[in-house]
Amino acid sequence: MGGIDNTQPFLTPLKIIEQAQGGVMHGIKASDHSFAGFGEAYFSTVNFGLIKGWKLHRKMTLNLVVPSGEIRFVVHSASENYTGRDVVPVLDVILGSTQYSRLTVPPGYWVAFEGVGRERNILLNVADIEHEPSEAINYPLDFFRVPNFHQF
Amino acid sequence: MGGIDNTQPFLTPLKIIEQAQGGVMHGIKASDHSFAGFGEAYFSTVNFGLIKGWKLHRKMTLNLVVPSGEIRFVVHSASENYTGRDVVPVLDVILGSTQYSRLTVPPGYWVAFEGVGRERNILLNVADIEHEPSEAINYPLDFFRVPNFHQF
Repeated sequence: MGGIDNTQPFLTPLKIIEQAQGGVMHGIKASDHSFAGFGEAYFSTVNFGLIKGWKLHRKMTLNLVVPSGEIRFVVHSASENYTGRDVVPVLDVILGSTQYSRLTVPPGYWVAFEGVGRERNILLNVADIEHEPSEAINYPLDFFRVPNFHQF
Repeated sequence: MGGIDNTQPFLTPLKIIEQAQGGVMHGIKASDHSFAGFGEAYFSTVNFGLIKGWKLHRKMTLNLVVPSGEIRFVVHSASENYTGRDVVPVLDVILGSTQYSRLTVPPGYWVAFEGVGRERNILLNVADIEHEPSEAINYPLDFFRVPNFHQF
């Protein structure tokens, strides 16, 4: 088991191994630095041009990989009782085949993600706890304003 | 943690939750019966009409989910020193959006899988140990003859 020291979101480049019949794409290993424990692995899909967010997890560490399509992730650290609207992302990145990296998000960050690819956009989250609705907060997309994201 | 009593490969139906922007597709939870521990999560892709196999893991339990495309899995239990060629599968199933289930394969089974979908065929394996080449045996595809599979 790893265990995360980092309190900031971060990226880890991953390998894709091409083979005659297809390929192998790395995800996450128990010995990886960013591995925070295993609670659940699930997929989330996001259609082209659409956005899921905002969501903040109070307990869950996310480990996100995009095996199909291209997904833009926007992450910021506004406090839960921030009364303003304008936020500056700590991370704004497109992941997928052109940048195949794992995104680790510790608890306490707001995340939104947008379907950028025209093929199927799929993320895998290897979460350290199982799904537990009470540990997550959802805000509408227009609650926060991020430069060059959404309608802003 | 779960821990597998089963010594046979088996399927577990999984939920897909449709949402306005995309969907959520279940994978595996630490509390699931078929969860055997976490060593590594990785993807394997297989192109349309091509087959990866045969492979037998001596230690690894596989938990396989197909989030994109359609993949046919053929599993049989010939012993490592079986001198014949003809085998009867214990399991022969196509997984993907039409049958979205998790396939659990305990150690000691031969597995081959074929890309059946014309879109990208991707499997996720949530393995209980990290990749360790010495615990897996690879045989060429034509080593075993399975009715209605490959050229046979």
